[in-house]
This record gives sequence, structure tokens and C-alpha cells, in this order.
Amino acid sequence: MFESAEIGHVIDKAAYKTEEASLREALLEAQYELQQRSQFPVLLLIHGMDGAGRGDMLNQINEWLDPRLIHTAAFDTPNDDARERPWMWRYWRELPAKGRIGMFFGSYYSDALFDRVDSKINRDTFDKQLFDILRFERMLSNDGVLVLKFWLHLTEEKQRKRLRTLEKDPATAWRVSQADWQHHQQYKRIRDNAEHMMRLTNTAYSPWLVVDGEDANYRSLAVGRALLQALQQRLAMAESWHPRSDVAPITPPADNKLLLESLQLEQTLSKDDYRQQLAALQGRLNGLTRDPRFAEHSLVLAFEGNDAAGKGGAIRRITQALDARLYRVVPVAAPSEEERAMPWLWRFWRQVPGKGKVTIFDRTWYGRVLVERVEGFADTADWMRGYYEINDFEHQLTDNKAIVLKFWLAISADEQLARFKAREETGFKRFKITEEDWRNRDKWDAYKVAVCDMIDRTSTSAVPWTLVPANNKYYARIKVLTTVCEALEARLGKA
Amino acid sequence: MFESAEIGHVIDKAAYKTEEASLREALLEAQYELQQRSQFPVLLLIHGMDGAGRGDMLNQINEWLDPRLIHTAAFDTPNDDARERPWMWRYWRELPAKGRIGMFFGSYYSDALFDRVDSKINRDTFDKQLFDILRFERMLSNDGVLVLKFWLHLTEEKQRKRLRTLEKDPATAWRVSQADWQHHQQYKRIRDNAEHMMRLTNTAYSPWLVVDGEDANYRSLAVGRALLQALQQRLAMAESWHPRSDVAPITPPADNKLLLESLQLEQTLSKDDYRQQLAALQGRLNGLTRDPRFAEHSLVLAFEGNDAAGKGGAIRRITQALDARLYRVVPVAAPSEEERAMPWLWRFWRQVPGKGKVTIFDRTWYGRVLVERVEGFADTADWMRGYYEINDFEHQLTDNKAIVLKFWLAISADEQLARFKAREETGFKRFKITEEDWRNRDKWDAYKVAVCDMIDRTSTSAVPWTLVPANNKYYARIKVLTTVCEALEARLGKA
Repeated sequence: MFESAEIGHVIDKAAYKTEEASLREALLEAQYELQQRSQFPVLLLIHGMDGAGRGDMLNQINEWLDPRLIHTAAFDTPNDDARERPWMWRYWRELPAKGRIGMFFGSYYSDALFDRVDSKINRDTFDKQLFDILRFERMLSNDGVLVLKFWLHLTEEKQRKRLRTLEKDPATAWRVSQADWQHHQQYKRIRDNAEHMMRLTNTAYSPWLVVDGEDANYRSLAVGRALLQALQQRLAMAESWHPRSDVAPITPPADNKLLLESLQLEQTLSKDDYRQQLAALQGRLNGLTRDPRFAEHSLVLAFEGNDAAGKGGAIRRITQALDARLYRVVPVAAPSEEERAMPWLWRFWRQVPGKGKVTIFDRTWYGRVLVERVEGFADTADWMRGYYEINDFEHQLTDNKAIVLKFWLAISADEQLARFKAREETGFKRFKITEEDWRNRDKWDAYKVAVCDMIDRTSTSAVPWTLVPANNKYYARIKVLTTVCEALEARLGKA
Repeated sequence: MFESAEIGHVIDKAAYKTEEASLREALLEAQYELQQRSQFPVLLLIHGMDGAGRGDMLNQINEWLDPRLIHTAAFDTPNDDARERPWMWRYWRELPAKGRIGMFFGSYYSDALFDRVDSKINRDTFDKQLFDILRFERMLSNDGVLVLKFWLHLTEEKQRKRLRTLEKDPATAWRVSQADWQHHQQYKRIRDNAEHMMRLTNTAYSPWLVVDGEDANYRSLAVGRALLQALQQRLAMAESWHPRSDVAPITPPADNKLLLESLQLEQTLSKDDYRQQLAALQGRLNGLTRDPRFAEHSLVLAFEGNDAAGKGGAIRRITQALDARLYRVVPVAAPSEEERAMPWLWRFWRQVPGKGKVTIFDRTWYGRVLVERVEGFADTADWMRGYYEINDFEHQLTDNKAIVLKFWLAISADEQLARFKAREETGFKRFKITEEDWRNRDKWDAYKVAVCDMIDRTSTSAVPWTLVPANNKYYARIKVLTTVCEALEARLGKA
């Protein structure tokens, strides 16, 4: 991987000056076109050996381009917020929006590489993390992000010379830390593992570019040119760009008998029984969230259901039982402008709870395969890969010890009609019913198929869907609370 | 994942008969179109719970379709040949060719699933194997293979009933084995792990289809329809089908200084010194391949180089040192018709050596990113993802303890010219020089760039490229032999 970068590359001052002027102009032009069109974001990862000029390169790019449109993020040891959440969370937070350039100094690659170099993880775990990265970058790339990865290289000998030179000069001595020398001691181990890392993450759409970092002129031109070429190529194809679009057909059951139809929607529970059970369950839930063992976990509750199925009511019966400092309810509507400029899962990643916390989603990321599918807001290829991306997202949550429960509240078409009418007639409930609700009702059957496909493709014992018959609100609320309590007890070892 | 398949699905005899006739006709028609066009192969994986009718389904498909165009392979415990090679090897061997349907009864999924169910592997290793599968299927799919995955399902209770019914009838009792009852005991564990497996491998282009296996009519129609729909959809888009095609641009070094140019091609070694060193090295190599520790490994030597650079001569100096039963030399030319009908790496997978064996490739899988790139035989997107696919292939070899060494034999343009002329003038060497050699010479510079890109993207300490200056044949042969001996010694712990 490093052979070409180790033969010595130099560009003299005159040649550099000549090219720099035109390169800079072309880069700025491309950057403004990127911003004006705002069709895709660019993510630049700057990695490399200590002393190979990563910091200088970062500054150079900020100097060449319009820094107001560049979002730079440096990643060091994760803070508490990040440590409590899945590994990728802090990188999701810093992703650039469409039309902008994000520049990461250190990234998920550094985490994996140095955990391996420091023997904190074994080779298998290293590989697993690299495949995590691969799937993450593939998802970004499918969503349109242009990911560019640079490795600024130095041979062991040149690194030693460079660190010594910097140390000798009082003006630059501060730039050499003990960590730099430690890394120098580990040079071969870093080099070998970096090679392995690149080998497993070198994809056609997002390959590594290794650049000899010794000569500043060479390094700058190499990175600058590569950035320009990638930007221009992608801008030129912008309209015709698309991720892979071949998807398998979805086949309905051969007898057209749908899971949802097998649900017994009518259930009975008297008001008295409801009150009694509710009080007991809320006390039980409260105790569970105060259990010291819960501090190792987090709880993610996802609510979906027919319009007017009683999601809000069910959620309130849960929050009544929780300490207000522990939970957050996230209502999910159409994405905001800011959210539309990011990869689609971004708005859910930002809501991932820390340890000991509860996040309740009133409508969820499943909108991708429900409303966006049925209404045609997303291309078939996009919502089809949504199942995989959702499973991957939830896998990262549960891998981080989150307890993830998903509820589909189901009512019959007749019951919905009755509730819609009641809402229209009751003053304080009128805001809850809109034209859109009536329109959605027309697509009842299409939603039914989408819900069944969703459950078939995303429900597992680790992150189960619970189908809740909800014609009787009391029954539905008790069913939800019971499910939450039992899942917590099972996980906390109290079952 | 299994919810929809557990609500009970039945299709009565009359309805079945009516649909079967037309389904069968349509399937046959699609199959013949598939064969006539021979643009892509179809791979069908039949999995599911014991007793859910996997065997019957397989027979049914063979009955409906023209079985001469179906290649059925059942996978049980791997035999010696397979155990000595990377995990995926035996599946590569049974892949269907373009225009044909391959049907796997049991597959790489069974290996991973039951190793996990039987606790032979932990959860992390299970995940790692699932990501291996994911990359394998992505590669197949990028190469045009239509991969369809079925899971025939049964609930625990229905499985018990089914096994008992089969046992009671003397005509079917033989179909119930002890293993079936063992699996029945492990039902929940199989179900949970199968869910997890599907979750991580459910892609948009190759999703799992879960089918209720209880009622034979339902099961047959469900699978038959899904197969038909997938075939028809893909046949309809055949010309417009393409895997994802966005690739990053390749940037040459900013100073246009190429790795190959930094090589000192002229080296000196006298004939006497050569003879002496050759004898010593050949003895050393022979001893190494007889070392009992070598029986745990295998050796893969890959030779590439300029035309007339002396690959054949270098290879002969190696084989002279080896027991004829231990090695095989594989000359690689343009792919045969049979090979062109398979995913491109297939012809190399079939040559992977078993333990204690040596395979020497005279030209290799790197043709994908050399001749196929330079001559335009492969689309840019295809050879660009070639680097990744090659790295993945070699990763599987080294994971299986193969020692993989790659040599680029480099001569100067002048030296090549001299050798070409000498060949034309020497009777017995004339067959070695063709019009094509002269044409390749015209593309010297394009090849040079391709070679450098190849080395930058595929050389790591685990599977290094060795650049061999070969203007002096003696020097080149000694360099190759020394490299092989030293690598073997390092790996066998004799260095």
C-alpha cells in the first residue's frame, strides 16, 4: 500500500507556485458549485503517520477553500456522552450537510487502528470494526455522500528525522509530544495494521489515497488535485449519479393472508381492571428504571400505528411512571430542511439515549419503509435498502446494550372512522385531525402491506415488534406497559 | 422475521391446481429465456426448519422446470478437500453458470448458523462470518448473479406434529432422523439465531423470503411465484441492469514519479555466483516444503511482469526444487467460454491449493486490473471494484493460513525489445513472440500506471508484492527464490 509513497516525491517551489494559483481557483469554483447545487455533501478524512503533515494539510485546505463552508472536526478520546453511546454516534453528529465539506482529523479509522496497535482489541474484533466502517461508508455513499480518504505517509527513518528537526527548533518544539515518540516506537505495528485496515476498506467508490507526506509542496498538490478531481467528476455526473438500483421484488403471501389481518383487534378490559393494572405496572416500571443495573443499559421505545390508534395515550402512560430527568419523547414528523440535508438516519442518531436513559419515539425511522414507501417520497431502491440500514442501526444500539422495543398499535378501519369523527366533534381534539389523515385512510391497504413487510424484515427476538390490538385503548396501554416491564426484567435478570 | 409465516397459510387443492398449471408454464418460459440469453446465472438457496419441506420444494422446482438446466448441490459436512481450503471454496465450486439455475440445499448460511447453534463459535465470530457472506453475495451480485434466498418456516409445535406424523407412517418414517429431533430440542436457539442471521444479511438486492412451510400447496406456490417474479423482473431489465457504477477517480502521483521508475533494473550477478546460489536456495526451499510445519500452510505464488521478463524461467527454478506431487503451475490466459460464464474470480478459486501444497500462477487474477483495464475488456466500475475483491480473496486465503507471495518481474523497454528480437531469431523460441506482444509494447506507459496502482492498492505485509528487477535473469531468479525461502522461514518460525 505504501510502496509508491516511499520512493521520495518532491515538487520544487517554482512549479508549486505556478500550479497552486490555478488549483486554488478551480477548487474554489468547484466548492461554490457544490454549495449552490447542494445535492451532496463531501466528507474528507485526513489520516497518516505522525509528522507527515496532517495538521498542515488541514490548514492548507481551509486556506485554499472558503472555510465558512467547511466543517472541521478533530476527534480524540471520546467524552462521556460519546462513551455511553454506540461507537459511530459521535461521527454521525459531525457529518456535513449537502453542499458542504466536512473534514475529519482522526476518525473512526483512528479508533479501530489504535485500539489494535495498543492491543486493546484482537485481530477478529479489528476486522469486525473494519466491516462496521465499511457498512457505514457504504450507507453514506448510497445516500450520496462523497467520502474521500487520505493517508499522509512517512517512512520510519523520515519520521525520526522529522520529529528531531521539529524538536530542535524552539518555534516548533511544542508540536512534538510524547505520544509522537511513542507512535514512532510502534512504527512497524502501525504501518502493518494501517495496511490491513486499508486493504479491507478500499472500495471502488471510496478508496484510500496514500500520499508521500515528506515534501509539503508535493503533499499539498497531491491532496489538492485529488480533491479537485473527485469534486469535478461528481459534479459533472450529479444528475446522472445514483447508487446501485437493482432491488429484488417484494412478494406478498401466496394466499394474500396478511399478518395484520390475523390480529384480534377487539379485546376487552374494564375501566376498573385497567386502573388497577395501570397503577401496578407504572410502579413496577418506575422501580425498574431506578434499578442500578439499568444504568448499564438504555431504553429505546419506538411507536408506530394507524392514525388515531392511541400512540400518544400509550406513551403518556409510560412517561407518567418515569422520572422526568430520565426520558425524552421525540415526536417524528416530516424531516426539517436541516434534516433533509443529511443522510436519512441522521435525525434518529442524534436522539440516541445515553446509559440509564429512555428515549420514546412517537413515529420513527420506520417512516422510511411506511409513509415514504407508500407515498413515493423515496425511490424503491432507497426504501428497499432501508430495511438493511434500519437493522444495522438497531444492531448498533443493541450492541451497545440498549433495550429496543417496537410497537405497532393496530385499530380497525371502522374504529378509526369513529375516532376521526369523534375528534372532529370534540373542540380540544380537533387539532388532531387533518386532511392528511383522511387521505392516509384512502391508502389503508397499501399501508397494511407495508406494515407486514416491515415486520417480516425487521422483527427479531433481539429487537422485536409487538403488535398491539388497540380498538380498546385500555387493553392497548396495559399491553404496552406489560411488554416494557417484562423486557426490562428479562434484561436486568429479574424475570 | 417469522411473524407472517406463523399465522397459518393454506391454499386448497382446487385453487392450487388452477394456478399451478399457468405458473409452471410461465416458469418454464422464463427459464428458457434465461438460457437463451445466458446473461446471468440464478442462485437459489433453500433453507428452513426441519420438517418444513425443503426437500419437497427442491423436488418440486426440479419437476416444474427443466432439470437439465438446473444444477442442484446439497452441502453437508465438508470433506477433506474442502476442510483444507478457505470456507467459501466449496460453494465457489458449485456456482451456476450464466443462463443456468443453481439450487443449494444447505449453504454457507447453514455452516454459520449451526456452528453458532452448537456453540462452536461465539457471537462475534458468527457476526464475522455473516459479514463474510454479505461480501460474498455482494460480489456475486455485482457480477450479475441473481441470488434468491428462501427460509421455509414451521413453528415449534407444528414441527413436533410434523415429525410425529412422518414417524408414524412406515412409508415416511425413514425421513425422520435423530438429528431432526435434536434440532427440534434446539428450536428456540435455531429460531433466534436464524433471525439474527437474516437481519444482518437482508439486502435490497438479495433479501430473505420467509415462507410458511406447513401446507405444501401454499409453500409451493409462494416459492414458485417469488422465483417467477424475480426471474421476470431481471429478464425485463437485463440490458439496463448494472451494479453500482460510481467510482472514485484514480489520481497519479502529483509529480508523475512512478514507483516502477524508481526501480534499479540493471543488477549484476555472474553466472558462477548464480549457479552456486541457485543450488543452495533450491536445497533450502526443498527442505522448507518438507518441513512438517508446512503441512499446516499452503503456498500461493503469483507471477506477473512485462512480456519477456522471464516469468517462466523464474518459475522453473522454483519447481525444480519441489516434489512433483506438491505443486501445480497454472498458466493464466484469456478466460475460456466456461470461465466467462462464471463470476470472474471463479477460475482462480478452483485452483486454490490444499494444505501442504503449492500453486504457482503464471499470470494471475491481477489481469483484472492490468490487461482488462488497459485494453478496456472490463468496465471501469468492474475493474475498480476488482481491487477490493482481490484483497478480499487474498484475505480469505491468508485467513486459511496460506502464504501468498506476489512478484512483478520488471524489465526495461530496451531490454524487452532485445529479447523480442532474439526470440524471433531463435527457432525454438519463436512461438513465444506474437503480434499481441508487439501491440502490448505500444501500451507500455498505460501498463506502467496500472501496475503502480495495483501495487499501491493490493500490497501489504501480509500479502506483499515483490518488485523484481529482471534485466539480469540470474539476479531475478535468485531474488525470487530468496524471497520465497525467507517468507517460508518467517512463517514456519525458522527465521
